Amino acid sequence: MSTRKQATLRETTVGRVRSEVLAFTVGDDPRLDLALVAADCLGSAAHATMLSRLPARVRPFGVSGRRALIRELRRIMVAAREGRFTITAADQDVHLAVERELTQRLGVLGKQIHTARSRNDQIAVDLRLLAREQLLGLVADTGRVAAALLALARRGRRVPMVGRTHLQPAMTSSVGLWAAAYAESLFDDITLLRAAYALNDACPLGAAAGYGVPWPVDRSLTARLLGFRRPVHNVLHAIQARGKVEGAILAACAQVMVSLSRLAQDLMIFTLPEFGYFSLPEGFGTGSSIMPQKYNPDVLELIRARAARVLACELAVMEVVRGLPGGYNRDLQETKGPLLEGLAITRGCLRILPPLLAGLKINRRALLAGFTPGVFAAERVLELVAGGRPFREAYQYVKAHLRELQAGDPYRSLAAKRHLGAPGRPEFKVARRRLEASRRWAQRQWAAHCAVVRRLLGVRYPLRGMREGV
Amino acid sequence: MSTRKQATLRETTVGRVRSEVLAFTVGDDPRLDLALVAADCLGSAAHATMLSRLPARVRPFGVSGRRALIRELRRIMVAAREGRFTITAADQDVHLAVERELTQRLGVLGKQIHTARSRNDQIAVDLRLLAREQLLGLVADTGRVAAALLALARRGRRVPMVGRTHLQPAMTSSVGLWAAAYAESLFDDITLLRAAYALNDACPLGAAAGYGVPWPVDRSLTARLLGFRRPVHNVLHAIQARGKVEGAILAACAQVMVSLSRLAQDLMIFTLPEFGYFSLPEGFGTGSSIMPQKYNPDVLELIRARAARVLACELAVMEVVRGLPGGYNRDLQETKGPLLEGLAITRGCLRILPPLLAGLKINRRALLAGFTPGVFAAERVLELVAGGRPFREAYQYVKAHLRELQAGDPYRSLAAKRHLGAPGRPEFKVARRRLEASRRWAQRQWAAHCAVVRRLLGVRYPLRGMREGV
Amino acid sequence: MSTRKQATLRETTVGRVRSEVLAFTVGDDPRLDLALVAADCLGSAAHATMLSRLPARVRPFGVSGRRALIRELRRIMVAAREGRFTITAADQDVHLAVERELTQRLGVLGKQIHTARSRNDQIAVDLRLLAREQLLGLVADTGRVAAALLALARRGRRVPMVGRTHLQPAMTSSVGLWAAAYAESLFDDITLLRAAYALNDACPLGAAAGYGVPWPVDRSLTARLLGFRRPVHNVLHAIQARGKVEGAILAACAQVMVSLSRLAQDLMIFTLPEFGYFSLPEGFGTGSSIMPQKYNPDVLELIRARAARVLACELAVMEVVRGLPGGYNRDLQETKGPLLEGLAITRGCLRILPPLLAGLKINRRALLAGFTPGVFAAERVLELVAGGRPFREAYQYVKAHLRELQAGDPYRSLAAKRHLGAPGRPEFKVARRRLEASRRWAQRQWAAHCAVVRRLLGVRYPLRGMREGV
Amino acid sequence: MSTRKQATLRETTVGRVRSEVLAFTVGDDPRLDLALVAADCLGSAAHATMLSRLPARVRPFGVSGRRALIRELRRIMVAAREGRFTITAADQDVHLAVERELTQRLGVLGKQIHTARSRNDQIAVDLRLLAREQLLGLVADTGRVAAALLALARRGRRVPMVGRTHLQPAMTSSVGLWAAAYAESLFDDITLLRAAYALNDACPLGAAAGYGVPWPVDRSLTARLLGFRRPVHNVLHAIQARGKVEGAILAACAQVMVSLSRLAQDLMIFTLPEFGYFSLPEGFGTGSSIMPQKYNPDVLELIRARAARVLACELAVMEVVRGLPGGYNRDLQETKGPLLEGLAITRGCLRILPPLLAGLKINRRALLAGFTPGVFAAERVLELVAGGRPFREAYQYVKAHLRELQAGDPYRSLAAKRHLGAPGRPEFKVARRRLEASRRWAQRQWAAHCAVVRRLLGVRYPLRGMREGV
Repeated sequence: MSTRKQATLRETTVGRVRSEVLAFTVGDDPRLDLALVAADCLGSAAHATMLSRLPARVRPFGVSGRRALIRELRRIMVAAREGRFTITAADQDVHLAVERELTQRLGVLGKQIHTARSRNDQIAVDLRLLAREQLLGLVADTGRVAAALLALARRGRRVPMVGRTHLQPAMTSSVGLWAAAYAESLFDDITLLRAAYALNDACPLGAAAGYGVPWPVDRSLTARLLGFRRPVHNVLHAIQARGKVEGAILAACAQVMVSLSRLAQDLMIFTLPEFGYFSLPEGFGTGSSIMPQKYNPDVLELIRARAARVLACELAVMEVVRGLPGGYNRDLQETKGPLLEGLAITRGCLRILPPLLAGLKINRRALLAGFTPGVFAAERVLELVAGGRPFREAYQYVKAHLRELQAGDPYRSLAAKRHLGAPGRPEFKVARRRLEASRRWAQRQWAAHCAVVRRLLGVRYPLRGMREGV
Repeated sequence: MSTRKQATLRETTVGRVRSEVLAFTVGDDPRLDLALVAADCLGSAAHATMLSRLPARVRPFGVSGRRALIRELRRIMVAAREGRFTITAADQDVHLAVERELTQRLGVLGKQIHTARSRNDQIAVDLRLLAREQLLGLVADTGRVAAALLALARRGRRVPMVGRTHLQPAMTSSVGLWAAAYAESLFDDITLLRAAYALNDACPLGAAAGYGVPWPVDRSLTARLLGFRRPVHNVLHAIQARGKVEGAILAACAQVMVSLSRLAQDLMIFTLPEFGYFSLPEGFGTGSSIMPQKYNPDVLELIRARAARVLACELAVMEVVRGLPGGYNRDLQETKGPLLEGLAITRGCLRILPPLLAGLKINRRALLAGFTPGVFAAERVLELVAGGRPFREAYQYVKAHLRELQAGDPYRSLAAKRHLGAPGRPEFKVARRRLEASRRWAQRQWAAHCAVVRRLLGVRYPLRGMREGV
Repeated sequence: MSTRKQATLRETTVGRVRSEVLAFTVGDDPRLDLALVAADCLGSAAHATMLSRLPARVRPFGVSGRRALIRELRRIMVAAREGRFTITAADQDVHLAVERELTQRLGVLGKQIHTARSRNDQIAVDLRLLAREQLLGLVADTGRVAAALLALARRGRRVPMVGRTHLQPAMTSSVGLWAAAYAESLFDDITLLRAAYALNDACPLGAAAGYGVPWPVDRSLTARLLGFRRPVHNVLHAIQARGKVEGAILAACAQVMVSLSRLAQDLMIFTLPEFGYFSLPEGFGTGSSIMPQKYNPDVLELIRARAARVLACELAVMEVVRGLPGGYNRDLQETKGPLLEGLAITRGCLRILPPLLAGLKINRRALLAGFTPGVFAAERVLELVAGGRPFREAYQYVKAHLRELQAGDPYRSLAAKRHLGAPGRPEFKVARRRLEASRRWAQRQWAAHCAVVRRLLGVRYPLRGMREGV
Repeated sequence: MSTRKQATLRETTVGRVRSEVLAFTVGDDPRLDLALVAADCLGSAAHATMLSRLPARVRPFGVSGRRALIRELRRIMVAAREGRFTITAADQDVHLAVERELTQRLGVLGKQIHTARSRNDQIAVDLRLLAREQLLGLVADTGRVAAALLALARRGRRVPMVGRTHLQPAMTSSVGLWAAAYAESLFDDITLLRAAYALNDACPLGAAAGYGVPWPVDRSLTARLLGFRRPVHNVLHAIQARGKVEGAILAACAQVMVSLSRLAQDLMIFTLPEFGYFSLPEGFGTGSSIMPQKYNPDVLELIRARAARVLACELAVMEVVRGLPGGYNRDLQETKGPLLEGLAITRGCLRILPPLLAGLKINRRALLAGFTPGVFAAERVLELVAGGRPFREAYQYVKAHLRELQAGDPYRSLAAKRHLGAPGRPEFKVARRRLEASRRWAQRQWAAHCAVVRRLLGVRYPLRGMREGV
């Protein structure tokens, strides 16, 4: 083979390898990164604004350059929203896709926006902007499920229900107590979502590849423009915090999902024909193609299973970063998929529940039928004790005469438990207060965030058709 | 076989089964529960105090009963501290072990303390009291590592170090930036620990088995006596929150461990003879029985590996509760082991690091030797750009002439990056402020907690020899 | 301060650090390693035998040295079995503890046994010997549960039971089908346990620290002496396979546990008073100290939860080794705890089940009562189809007239499904064959293993009171 | 509002709910199920063939019906291969999409193929057919990486390399030993892949919804037609084994990935400029847009990170099934995504490595430069021992004089370790034998599988452009 032929062959091989390597490294990014277009435009707008205000000797462009860039970024954001923006494998990721567009339209200016920036701080800020919207959406969605549970609790506040331990009938409880317990669980989850929000609320922009830049960039300015409480101080940490923030978000999502999974598990059991405590509303059961009698709770089963998937997403993110050497590593790319998947699953589950809960039928008769005599055994013991028998003796007596035990009055039994938080004292003030507080907080943050977008990009925000964050 | 013989045989079999079942269900509890004795005494003291103030017609004992109980509880707490309290398999758990002691000493009074209480709310409150101390200890320990990192950062604030991306030499950085980045990571972790603390800071006592009691118990009083911010309102949630709180604590621990694992990974690489950037202090390397030259970083390796174990602990806890039906389920017992293991591992790793970091030797010469010409390539490009060449062309030129590239002056290179958080502007005010804030917070909480114990049990607290929480 | 004082102070500090570092690195080993004493003695016996047969010029001792060593190793093994062998923190691990004993008794000979060996290949072979016994025990234990399920299936082979999908009543099934399904699941698990056994069945001894030794050691001989099918060929892989084997074992354990967890979940539901299909035998329910009617299935709940823990153990092991650099790393120590924990949990759960299943009462009446008319809906559709109506129409008709549907005869319905594996054709030949095959295999392996121990150490094996492997 | 309006509104709401519920339950199936079209056609062809041979009184169609169905199934399979088959959200899944096509073409015949079948056994058999191809592909791919490692080992069999423990330089080793160790690790993984294959090799078809059918279906026939070793006997287990098989496959994938992750980790370190032991081939490094000197090992980093993701996939699958009640549950759907993701990631990583390894440059000079004097310390001790000094004394002497230690001759040092598997005795017979055995096995299975497809569907198989399984 001639040397030239050999060279050609070699180049072909290298070329093929290069394209396989590119496909391998790019992975799912072109698909996943579509979720980041708006955030990328926003981050770039802040960066461009800051650059345009640098001292004249170092600024790559001034006011008019900034204006042109902002105009194009706005256009791209809207186009993406309307499904008219694509990221190709050749683009690799959202940053290069946006840069390609900018350069096609604005020539060299489109490249200059990348001055004093790296894809490392760019993706870091994009993810935090996305996370901000998602966390506000999560708080709002979680609040809606909690509200639906409180409404259910109010409907069922005087409906007796057998309280269970070990899934076995144990003591008198109420539908109200049961539903409100899950609402309270979600309030706890909201505190964790808000903690993740606080962690997320710092701006990594200006960190470049983690070692800063030899430009007098104003990191406080970009942080402020983008509505962050402060910049991430240390530039290396700004890059290394990737994975940490994602992990905290997914840990909070996992807590939400675990709360929902337990609610789902209860509903699956309590809607069985053997219980019949509740009936799922029309549209929420799935039939069978061969069994006409079927009304399967697929939605609830999927919530239970998807909780396991969100936990796996969290784990994947945390393990990807565990033991990683300092500085940016390509491994971090693998935290993006699990983050987006975990967010999407959690929000999907939260949004399917309010109509289910609103339409849930409470079958009082079936609930009362659950009050077998055994449920009153503990109360019978206490009666005997009140009548003077020692506890141990009374207990043994009732245990020995379980078959003769009579069912008591669930309502009276309920009424006897009236201390704070007990089923016989249904009051939802505390819960409503927590709900209101989280609602107000989320609305305030969302309004501030929308104002940030409007100010930076001069666009109405939320964009048309966009599911609002809150 | 005679009927009597058969009956005897059957009883023997049932007896054997019973003891096997007991061993199976009790599991590791007798060992694990030793960690809970102090908390159990504290929770019981609050409950006894509350009971003694109930209306006369329902209170099981009055002031003198309370006094006797408190005295014994104090005695048990001190005995446990001194290793003189044991929990047997027959006891099953800490609650029954303490009750046994109380009953042996005080007769029926020892049983009456269990009025209007269940082991379910008892273990719930015990775990929260333990978690409170542990979280304060974690915040303090984490702060100490962060302080050691800041001290190291200060020592190395003007020592150039090659900044890396993909572990490959990339750009000028400094030892100060590197060490301070990990400190900042730990500050972030502290916010997560504090979020877990806030979640934990509510009192489940009075929930009994999750359905309240037909006594007018004062749940706000016990919450206040025990120093909680508020009671868990809903009694069912008070029981169902087990696992949730543990999961949040372990998620925060996992974040701490991941931060430490990355620091450990860096140190393992940078202390290799091929780097020699740092030297571990005497006592921190482990030799080999056959290779005299060895100085192995076992401590760092174990930190990296134990981070994986803490993540597994978190996962175990979250999965145990996922999909669990409502109300108490015995499954919850299996969250205790992972919680205690995760806490012990995390605190152990945090406590071994400060002396390691304090004694870490910075080898400036080796660090400077790392500045190969390539590290200056990006700067050379910028110089050419400053001299008028277009960026793309300058980049290609430098890339084509990499071999001729000269190493630059790391100090000058450092000095050029002077914006907020950049390596050329080492300042630790922000970090110190965050450190101080967390320190003050932890001390305040700890003081309040100690006051709670003193007030309730009349004992000097922390007990002698006890590793203080902060 | 005088120089001498300073030196003293420094030494004290270093000493304190050293002891803290030792405590940190040793971790739980002194406790965990007790499980490895027998294996360590066995491995050492093989190594000593091989050394004694080396060419005269290199062998550290001959026949009489070997005899003395074997005698002491046998003594230690028996002592450990009887609880008379301890490992102290100063020993660090089982290897040094055994070496200490040998040296105390035999002087320099006790040290010479360590010729051409490292703790790295020593622990590797110990773990494989332990794993061999444990895997054989697991196969035997799993077989026993499967046998108990088959016995239950035989008892219930003609007892109709509502088959469920989505937990909702679906179609006619039988107790026999239900119980036999779990038996078959366990047979599948046994194939995975045997695959782990095959992976484990290679001898790492002679690999030293992973790079071999400058002695003409005979690795094939030690492999043969210890009953392994072959040596691990590559000495580096012999060391690096740690974690891999453990991961495979725990993956198989996790599969067993997941099978058991599903069985447990079914039993928890089907023993609820609302179902009453089965009753747990006496001794397997746990009562409540306040509710006399309670009969809680704690054993089943713990199985469900412990399955999550074994999964977490597997994960911990796999993650500890993921991304680890080649060669021995101290991280590997952290795979030991999860391995032992996962094995203990799995075997504990397997051993508690046979008496539970043997004593499980089948309540035919309750099972028949579960056959509500809806269960026959699909059959009614097929009848109409057989009578000439198109399927879709028949389906719609039945769906529209669900309330008028009559319950059919479960026995007839069962009898109609008679193809291979169907509930109307209960036959257990295939299952029994699989059971017998696994039993025979395990017994054969166990006998061979015992012969290995006897031959090497001249001790009766299994040792007295030892729970046999099979 | 009039009653009619109300009814309309209600219907609209129910309709909206229904479509949201559908979107929620369907999830990613329309996208994921594209991977299952070929398997679905294959399974249906076997089922149709079996139905056509049923006794005349019950068979839904005969030979000509079968022929028509097969023709259409073949067409669909080819269309899907060429990207001309889509699954819509309305279809929900692959089964209904295929049925839709069949019905459009063949009318009622298209529906009759569903006789005596349920989507439950259909998806179960589809997944096993897919898994069969994938597992054969995995064995082949893994073998190729092992082969590349052996080729590398052969190239480097006489090239000394510092063997490491704790990542620190320890002893003489060779490039050959290092590369061959990873090959052997992959052979171990192949045994686990084959164990998963054996588990998968049983046919669930005919189980319907898990309770069989009232038709005399011939399950042995369909198993044979589809090339399975046997039917899954118990029909309920046939359905319940979903998740178990997937879990075993992913556990084996995870082992492969962990092997690769460690290889990747080593390569990342040994290609650092500080080591320079190896150079990545052209095309495998990724540059930086701002640092011209960069040659980042992104491929290796992603392998390390993706190993964590495959572990998370395994965990998700196992956890979804843990604690699930018996019979089909919708949760099982959530095992499909992780299975496909885990398979795709693992195969992608396996396929990117052979050219990387083939092009890896061994830099002998740098490898030799790694032999600092310390590496010879252990050998120096042994020399002194050979010269008569007691070991302990020799060790102390060398340790005290480390600085005076001279580097030895790595080649001589290598040559001294000549026992089985040692670096001084590079021989690859055992490895080659294992490689050949797995290769032959995979080819045999693949040929048999292709014959099955050809026989059933009359199509050339593998289809054009299809990446062969082996």
